[in-house]
Amino acid sequence: MRFTTQRRLDDGVLERDFLLGDVPGILWTTESASAPAPLILLGHPGGLRAMYPRLVTRARSCVAEGFAAATVELPGCGDRPRSATADEARADLRRAVRAGEPVDEIVDRLVLPLVDAAVPEWRGALDALLALPDIGGPVGYAGGVMAIGVRLAVVEPRISAALLFAGSFVPRSMVEEARRVSIPLLVLLQWDDEDNDRQMALDLFDAFGTRQKTLHANTGGHTGVPAFEGESGNRFFARHLT
Amino acid sequence: MRFTTQRRLDDGVLERDFLLGDVPGILWTTESASAPAPLILLGHPGGLRAMYPRLVTRARSCVAEGFAAATVELPGCGDRPRSATADEARADLRRAVRAGEPVDEIVDRLVLPLVDAAVPEWRGALDALLALPDIGGPVGYAGGVMAIGVRLAVVEPRISAALLFAGSFVPRSMVEEARRVSIPLLVLLQWDDEDNDRQMALDLFDAFGTRQKTLHANTGGHTGVPAFEGESGNRFFARHLT
Repeated sequence: MRFTTQRRLDDGVLERDFLLGDVPGILWTTESASAPAPLILLGHPGGLRAMYPRLVTRARSCVAEGFAAATVELPGCGDRPRSATADEARADLRRAVRAGEPVDEIVDRLVLPLVDAAVPEWRGALDALLALPDIGGPVGYAGGVMAIGVRLAVVEPRISAALLFAGSFVPRSMVEEARRVSIPLLVLLQWDDEDNDRQMALDLFDAFGTRQKTLHANTGGHTGVPAFEGESGNRFFARHLT
Repeated sequence: MRFTTQRRLDDGVLERDFLLGDVPGILWTTESASAPAPLILLGHPGGLRAMYPRLVTRARSCVAEGFAAATVELPGCGDRPRSATADEARADLRRAVRAGEPVDEIVDRLVLPLVDAAVPEWRGALDALLALPDIGGPVGYAGGVMAIGVRLAVVEPRISAALLFAGSFVPRSMVEEARRVSIPLLVLLQWDDEDNDRQMALDLFDAFGTRQKTLHANTGGHTGVPAFEGESGNRFFARHLT
């Protein structure tokens, strides 16, 4: 893990860009830590530069509550080498959703390889981040891509709680995977999300095997998550990570 | 409105029993109010005596957050004269649910007359409560019976926000009524509620016409609402009533 630049944000938050091999990431910590902080991994749909305004808002709110926050770029996104097959699947999905056509096959083609490629990278980032002196544990995962969060919740024992944003399609085969999730979950669903299948999200919520799961559904589209859900997520992690 | 007894609870909460005609009720206020408090009406399934432990817990939490709280007995429940037809419908519903038989006709027979009888009484209680010097406004409704909350949200303009507990059957005809609800709503759903129809609750949530609606679904049965939903309800009312 190699830090490339660092900035001091005006609320005492230290923001550091890093490279892990060729995977870029960002780490946010407080400048005034007295003890190693629990860590929240911030998930996103890919494209750190475009997602930065939303990510830094969430990161600042995490740091204000005593957590460290970190994220890494997804394979084939942002400044990383594109994948022609993923780009094609993404375009196919957009077309199919607009035309109201079935998407299952396209979702499998797009999301399963993404999950298979991204999850080991997030786990590698976790190794490197937990080796830093200012980061302790436990660890939470918060955000999208839904399917990445599901896989991480199943395979990564260092993740103790997850806030999953049901804002992306999940391959139907992963419903079985969801049954094996046993950590506390908070699932955010935008009720009128134009980029998602509401019934699929509800089926997935039903499938999660954990005994502690909560669904927060709010009116509005994909990007309309109400501000109060930020505080609500922090309280969820405070209950389970501190 | 006639106060019959009053008790000082140990956390500075004043609990007063009252009669409004022959309808018993309870009012909880702080002993140290400096200004008239916004009011939260606490809904319940009927039977104040049996419900008292849960109601007083919720009331204390409301008062601690600066609200007054009040409730009234439902028609045909607790110490009020029984209704033979309601008792019969209640027994029929229990049998039908246990046998997995359709319940729509029984729900209509049980819930519609209850809503028609109860809602004017809650509105009468509101008249009397808002005339007291220590209660101001605005007003929220919190709890069950779901159908009573829906009707109140539609017909009672003094209610500014409602937290509805989706723990009871709602007549299908009331879905149309739900479309007319325009106040902010927080709907609590116990995902594994043995006394309720989950799909019906989700359909009703979908139908609500208000632009500000949130669903909180949690694992567990009818009486298993997690303690953190109490704080969450208080924050909802703080956003909309203060």
